[in-house]
Amino acid sequence: MTKAELAAAKAELLERYQKYKDMDLSLNIARGNPSTAQLDMIMPMMDVIRSTTDCRDIYGTDARNYGALLGLKEAREFFGEMLGTTVDETIVVGASSINFMYDCLSRAMLKGVLGSEKPWVKYDKIKFICPVPGYDRHFSMCEFFGIEMIQVPTYEDGPDVDLIRKHVESDPTVKGMWCIPKFSNPLGITYSDDVVRALANLKPAAKDFRIFWDNSYMVHHIYGDVKLLNILDECKKAGNPDMVYMFGSTSKITMAGSGIGFFGASAANIKFTENQVKYETISWDKMNMLRHLRFIKSQGGIEKIMQKHANILRPKFDTVFEVLERELAGKGAGSWTKPKGGYFITFIANDGTATRINELVKACGVTMTGPGATHPFHHDPDDRYLRIAPSFPPVEELRPAMEVFAVSAQIATIESIEAQYE
Amino acid sequence: MTKAELAAAKAELLERYQKYKDMDLSLNIARGNPSTAQLDMIMPMMDVIRSTTDCRDIYGTDARNYGALLGLKEAREFFGEMLGTTVDETIVVGASSINFMYDCLSRAMLKGVLGSEKPWVKYDKIKFICPVPGYDRHFSMCEFFGIEMIQVPTYEDGPDVDLIRKHVESDPTVKGMWCIPKFSNPLGITYSDDVVRALANLKPAAKDFRIFWDNSYMVHHIYGDVKLLNILDECKKAGNPDMVYMFGSTSKITMAGSGIGFFGASAANIKFTENQVKYETISWDKMNMLRHLRFIKSQGGIEKIMQKHANILRPKFDTVFEVLERELAGKGAGSWTKPKGGYFITFIANDGTATRINELVKACGVTMTGPGATHPFHHDPDDRYLRIAPSFPPVEELRPAMEVFAVSAQIATIESIEAQYE
Repeated sequence: MTKAELAAAKAELLERYQKYKDMDLSLNIARGNPSTAQLDMIMPMMDVIRSTTDCRDIYGTDARNYGALLGLKEAREFFGEMLGTTVDETIVVGASSINFMYDCLSRAMLKGVLGSEKPWVKYDKIKFICPVPGYDRHFSMCEFFGIEMIQVPTYEDGPDVDLIRKHVESDPTVKGMWCIPKFSNPLGITYSDDVVRALANLKPAAKDFRIFWDNSYMVHHIYGDVKLLNILDECKKAGNPDMVYMFGSTSKITMAGSGIGFFGASAANIKFTENQVKYETISWDKMNMLRHLRFIKSQGGIEKIMQKHANILRPKFDTVFEVLERELAGKGAGSWTKPKGGYFITFIANDGTATRINELVKACGVTMTGPGATHPFHHDPDDRYLRIAPSFPPVEELRPAMEVFAVSAQIATIESIEAQYE
Repeated sequence: MTKAELAAAKAELLERYQKYKDMDLSLNIARGNPSTAQLDMIMPMMDVIRSTTDCRDIYGTDARNYGALLGLKEAREFFGEMLGTTVDETIVVGASSINFMYDCLSRAMLKGVLGSEKPWVKYDKIKFICPVPGYDRHFSMCEFFGIEMIQVPTYEDGPDVDLIRKHVESDPTVKGMWCIPKFSNPLGITYSDDVVRALANLKPAAKDFRIFWDNSYMVHHIYGDVKLLNILDECKKAGNPDMVYMFGSTSKITMAGSGIGFFGASAANIKFTENQVKYETISWDKMNMLRHLRFIKSQGGIEKIMQKHANILRPKFDTVFEVLERELAGKGAGSWTKPKGGYFITFIANDGTATRINELVKACGVTMTGPGATHPFHHDPDDRYLRIAPSFPPVEELRPAMEVFAVSAQIATIESIEAQYE
């Protein structure tokens, strides 16, 4: 485009932008929350346990009283099956898997993990591998604990394993790594079998290196099935059975914040963890475990729920793709990921324009996750990544929000080209 | 008694003991668990929320989704009222107050508390005041974190405040203190107003000293009302508003392990805590908070539940007192506490006989909390304290268990006198 053409295009976009601004919108595409329609579907779980004869798991444990530190055995079997772990490899915990990740990290800091020479807090410096873009809560935990974050790029098939290998195998202060292996937050990519195997076959310089495998979106398919290898199996084959901590939850299957978290690892890791968590609680909420078991009924029950969720989420993802495609395809104003499941789409803006896009959408009444949220310390060095969360708003709000976004992305792009001319 | 009289008494006791032994009993007075009758009473809470219109608190927050890190506002008001704190002084957490105590301690270790110069883990040694006899879970947390425990004796009106003052006011490495101020575990005593005020008026050498005020039995009256001063109020009057962390839970009001934990402290402590817990979770289980609010309805609702609990617990406590009185009064074979509420009775055996009593009852099929459990590192230096937990077994099991216990206490006493003769 010539300078004049650019100016004309910009004028037209600003006119469209102003029209949206005049509408006094108040729209939100920031939160990865299930929608009210999804939550409504789960309401029968709330009164599934009604009588005193319903209060025991199949092994006879009364879920209403203290005990069963690692969770009801029936729940450990059920959620273990989701993780691909046996009862001895599974702990079922409270309502938040993020809380248990924090807890595992906090215990590692104070006491170490299986195989640690000393608590992690006793090192001058420890480091975690952080694939970027990634999940702000993973990064902020590292920040909180003073763990140095080594950023590695993420491709369509997972993070850069060569770079990871270099760090992990040479530096004994690299103690851990964050992964969201399926429908990753925010890219929506899934690790290929090769990537999973490469990670399982790492030969860490630190004997107590742990992969924090946050498999939050394991069953969250929207456009057909996507497979992920069981990393614990691969770790066992590679002679690294203790190297991985797997996390899952029903926060985005049943209710966000009232779900069930679960943890899978080698039997040796579970034993070690049991000997630590016995100091921190008597037992987690077993009635909520039982409520889940009775409502979900079977692994097929999970699938049924997730298909219903997908039917609610698909039109929203479709809307995002449709607006971006229509408004931006071939214009050089940014690209975007096309996940087959999960909760997020990532927009990759032109260098240095993400902050400006966010300013523009915000001024137009659209709230989105701020730029930088996808990187450690909220700092995206190229100012490129913006996370779009389509799950919560209804389509009729999502569409104008995405139109505002697309117009803003074009304006920001033209502004940045103009700035180069000056 | 002469030697011969002793021998005759012992022979008679051994005969009775043998009769119990022949009965092949399997009885348990070890666990401070609510009984099935108590739990059955709470079942209507399980299906109190049935429809999508029931899912919000009075302020409109949807309890089914993420958010409200410090708990539903309505829940903070309600449980704050129990603690004697305002909304800004209250956090409502997950199903376990013990877990939140651990969490507060763990965060203090790793990051410090409000006013800390550095994380507690950065000290070569820190210390906690531990009134004895006390609660094994408090002590084992200190053990886990390597915190030195300073044992102070407990009297009928609370722990030895002069001794506490001496340690706390002279030693800046004394960072905390455990208290169960009402119906304490295991003695069942309640702190007098003078003791509460003395604690509130401490002038700790450590600026970041904290009283961990585990008020687990605040409404657990069995024989009439017992009052406890609000320590936060007293701390404010004394110019020490930030010195106390208060904990409560509904584990022994509604369901053990599926209840609600809550935390009270100065608004400044709450703000500080919020800035730490935001790294560890998105939100605790708000549906369980709502379930509690809708079932309990009002502070009067708590009272009604606790009166029903008392009606179930009173005959059990009566049974313990009756058997001990009948079998042991005036015999010099030990004494016992007579709590007006809570879950425990403590038997104070003659020096050096608690272990033997436990051996005898165990050999007769009665399980009780092991000797030493009331002291740090499971070591009761005088081998005197045994905790009796009458809540779980029905009276018809509790009575023979207590008879076995009383006979065993007498046998152990005679054995120890005989040993002195030798």
